[in-house]
Amino acid sequence: MIGVDWGTTSFRAYRLAADGKVLEARSAPRGILSMEKQDFSAVLKEQIAGWPDDLVLMCGMVGSRQGWKEVPYVNCPAGPSEIAAQMESVRPGVWIVPGLSCIDASGVPDVMRGEETQLIGVADSLPAEALVCLPGTHSKWARVRSGTIEGFSTFFTGELYAVLRDHSLLGRMMENGPPDAAAFSEGIARSGEDGGLLHHLFGVRTRGLFGELRGQAAPSYLSGLLIGHELRASARDRIHLVGAPELVALYAQGAELLGIEATALDPQAAARVR
Amino acid sequence: MIGVDWGTTSFRAYRLAADGKVLEARSAPRGILSMEKQDFSAVLKEQIAGWPDDLVLMCGMVGSRQGWKEVPYVNCPAGPSEIAAQMESVRPGVWIVPGLSCIDASGVPDVMRGEETQLIGVADSLPAEALVCLPGTHSKWARVRSGTIEGFSTFFTGELYAVLRDHSLLGRMMENGPPDAAAFSEGIARSGEDGGLLHHLFGVRTRGLFGELRGQAAPSYLSGLLIGHELRASARDRIHLVGAPELVALYAQGAELLGIEATALDPQAAARVR
Repeated sequence: MIGVDWGTTSFRAYRLAADGKVLEARSAPRGILSMEKQDFSAVLKEQIAGWPDDLVLMCGMVGSRQGWKEVPYVNCPAGPSEIAAQMESVRPGVWIVPGLSCIDASGVPDVMRGEETQLIGVADSLPAEALVCLPGTHSKWARVRSGTIEGFSTFFTGELYAVLRDHSLLGRMMENGPPDAAAFSEGIARSGEDGGLLHHLFGVRTRGLFGELRGQAAPSYLSGLLIGHELRASARDRIHLVGAPELVALYAQGAELLGIEATALDPQAAARVR
Repeated sequence: MIGVDWGTTSFRAYRLAADGKVLEARSAPRGILSMEKQDFSAVLKEQIAGWPDDLVLMCGMVGSRQGWKEVPYVNCPAGPSEIAAQMESVRPGVWIVPGLSCIDASGVPDVMRGEETQLIGVADSLPAEALVCLPGTHSKWARVRSGTIEGFSTFFTGELYAVLRDHSLLGRMMENGPPDAAAFSEGIARSGEDGGLLHHLFGVRTRGLFGELRGQAAPSYLSGLLIGHELRASARDRIHLVGAPELVALYAQGAELLGIEATALDPQAAARVR
């Protein structure tokens, strides 16, 4: 079978063996934002050309209102069978996996599309109860019990980092450079101090102004500050991390500094649609 | 005498009577970002043309590294006499008022340029000990005791609102419309719930997605969320507000919802350089 992760900005396809092993992978910058409704079928055909498999499971924003077909969210708690039961077909043999929704303790809704498939992919590697973090533009923190996703919370961390870097006064003092582990650690430590995030953000500027933070170190400091706030708001004693290796490494470093035991799971396993 | 508030994006001049009363006011979009070093003198001359006064006191970013002349910050605690002692002249009769700096409890520096003059302007209206909030792009919270500014904290609130509205996914769901007091109140309430600011920001999107928040109400909700976080991080039982009337009104509304007693001070009084 073929697993497809079709997101906002990119298309990724995986040819999978019966045991879930990835036989072949392809990707293209054909995210749903770059497409018209009538293009989806042709782009899929083109991208998986030559692969003989006749079952295609697609997850991600392809199932959103702006995607190929809007597939309603499955409400948590939900496991593989609840998710499979609400898949929708867009063509014979081609299915969209629904995303998940939940309501937080204060009644505010939350959603994911795509991460549910990664969570199912790693479920076998998790203990009976686990808190799983999937870092990204919108980081997800999911509570998983015996393969069922009980609920989750989303954090705006990655997008906030990007808009501050590209469009704020803080970005104007930043220079490109290699990641700076010491500055990242300072940001993690700062996230626990008085004043809260809105005050800490202004401190990025003043530390630069006073020569305490070089332009090349400032991006790592900001990253540590934001990830530190996220970890303090959501992590418990032990977490599992799934995602792109460089992001997982940053979150693991932050967790270690906060005394949180973090286990990184194989992102290849998580990419599999089971 | 003439008081000038010369900031990043605008120039404002006030002709003042001996008792501090504003006799005449002028403004122009000639902030320091729009200028070269050699322009300052000519622009000032042009803007105050026809005013007979021979003493000019200027505050704001005009005294920063990017301004007419960099005037070092005066470290807190500082009152009118410490500030006056470190004014610097750029031309006979034309002085730049220094900004203030302080170090927060964790050792991180903070700065203001311009707000110190507003604080001196309202000092007579304050009780012996006061917590004064000056809302804006970078809100300032100052602890003032008997006319001396003991220390202060800056919050990135206004700039964060602007970059999120103009450059993020949240901005894309927003529509222009009149301020929505109910949505603002919902944002203030939300700011005290579990998950912290990074989680609350994603909720702006999901509440829109689920039809709980109209595009025209979303800007007010986001504003309430951010101002709520700022107030919870910094306010005490009683605060004083100084600034633009519409911003002061929002902060006063937020304070009231949180059971904080807020007193708005006359912004005209605060504009005077005494």
